[in-house]
Amino acid sequence: MSDIYALAKVKALAFDVFGTVVDWRGSIDREAQQVGKTLNIQRDWALFADAWREGYAPAMDKVRQGALPWMTIDSLHRLILDSIVEPFGLAGLDDAQRDDLNRAWHRLQPWADSIEGMSRLKRRFTITTLSNGNFSLLTNMAKQAGLPWDCVISAELFGHYKPDPQTYQGTAKLLGIEIDELMLVAAHPSDLRAARAHGCRTAYVIRPLEFGMGHPPYHVDEDEFDLVAEDFNDLAAQLGL
Amino acid sequence: MSDIYALAKVKALAFDVFGTVVDWRGSIDREAQQVGKTLNIQRDWALFADAWREGYAPAMDKVRQGALPWMTIDSLHRLILDSIVEPFGLAGLDDAQRDDLNRAWHRLQPWADSIEGMSRLKRRFTITTLSNGNFSLLTNMAKQAGLPWDCVISAELFGHYKPDPQTYQGTAKLLGIEIDELMLVAAHPSDLRAARAHGCRTAYVIRPLEFGMGHPPYHVDEDEFDLVAEDFNDLAAQLGL
Repeated sequence: MSDIYALAKVKALAFDVFGTVVDWRGSIDREAQQVGKTLNIQRDWALFADAWREGYAPAMDKVRQGALPWMTIDSLHRLILDSIVEPFGLAGLDDAQRDDLNRAWHRLQPWADSIEGMSRLKRRFTITTLSNGNFSLLTNMAKQAGLPWDCVISAELFGHYKPDPQTYQGTAKLLGIEIDELMLVAAHPSDLRAARAHGCRTAYVIRPLEFGMGHPPYHVDEDEFDLVAEDFNDLAAQLGL
Repeated sequence: MSDIYALAKVKALAFDVFGTVVDWRGSIDREAQQVGKTLNIQRDWALFADAWREGYAPAMDKVRQGALPWMTIDSLHRLILDSIVEPFGLAGLDDAQRDDLNRAWHRLQPWADSIEGMSRLKRRFTITTLSNGNFSLLTNMAKQAGLPWDCVISAELFGHYKPDPQTYQGTAKLLGIEIDELMLVAAHPSDLRAARAHGCRTAYVIRPLEFGMGHPPYHVDEDEFDLVAEDFNDLAAQLGL
């Protein structure tokens, strides 16, 4: 826990989205179940969600290393989807059907506390996304789910994915604030560590069900982040809201 | 008026902001009056607002022509302010006081119909800013005034001011839509003509008081734009909302 004077400077909260604000695994599981029902295919669709998500970090790394050109997460999600349809019995989906399923990522549902906690935090802070999701994905998701962002900021605006420094630095610059006036809110220590290394304040929100029941928690050192919260309402309470 | 099939394709409305959504002249007039009262200076502060605004297009042109580097509207506003403090008796303002006055542009107030009309339009369309104002200016303004944007898009994101084509094309791209699925909503025919030339749909909203009482209206040819509206509520009604 850093001192209250450092925290008192914070003007804006930038939220990681996938896993932190929305339950990607449960949402993709439900959408894929519907597709499976229509096609009369029986699979473990939570594992399908996991397989889809597992392709995500390696695909971004390929872009970072230049093996793939810069592309949106929509395009990366589609590449990964095309690579996993076969084992999940979905190879028969045509292009339009795959595009529709791909847009399930625009329709992810928030955790139960997300909207209430964000609304409380919004009373004092500017609240924005800071996600690798593309701008339209984040905008559509917010509209669909009723997420009360003040603005939408995406890695797409910088041509760099998190955890590249351009994303944290670029967010502070767009918001017209100093880097230590920006706090990253995320459920992933790796994202928070990068943000902290570049000068951001950090709030770790524990999302024990992101990967389903019984998934081991991340190891986090004591005092590694400025705040550790059980959910967004707890974060609001810790910030006096 | 174009045919209803073309209008039925529209998915997002991008709004010009200064003059279209907010009353810059009345807002700057009021803020400058307060400064004048504090300093015991008598001036016509509406003319001060006009003088400040008059510097705006020439300053952007200098950036466009390379005589000035790319800079935010905050920086351009400050340059113009510094050039008009003398005749308005404000030369004694120090740097911090000038910065505070400069941020009056972050605190502009909406026209009476703006929020209600936007809220109606938001039910069917994605609504975004498309302004030369910088990202933080637009975000702060929305938060202060309660403007219910789905997202904030600024010329700053493209490194080009309107009416450069990159702004209209870039907005459609960020929103993940085709250019003819985007409608520009603006009170300025020049902005609308550029948007139309690049393939956008257009809605001209008449703001007869933007430059104060008795200012002559713009000349607009019949059928030049897809829609012509008295205000945002009228626009919503014309779009069936």
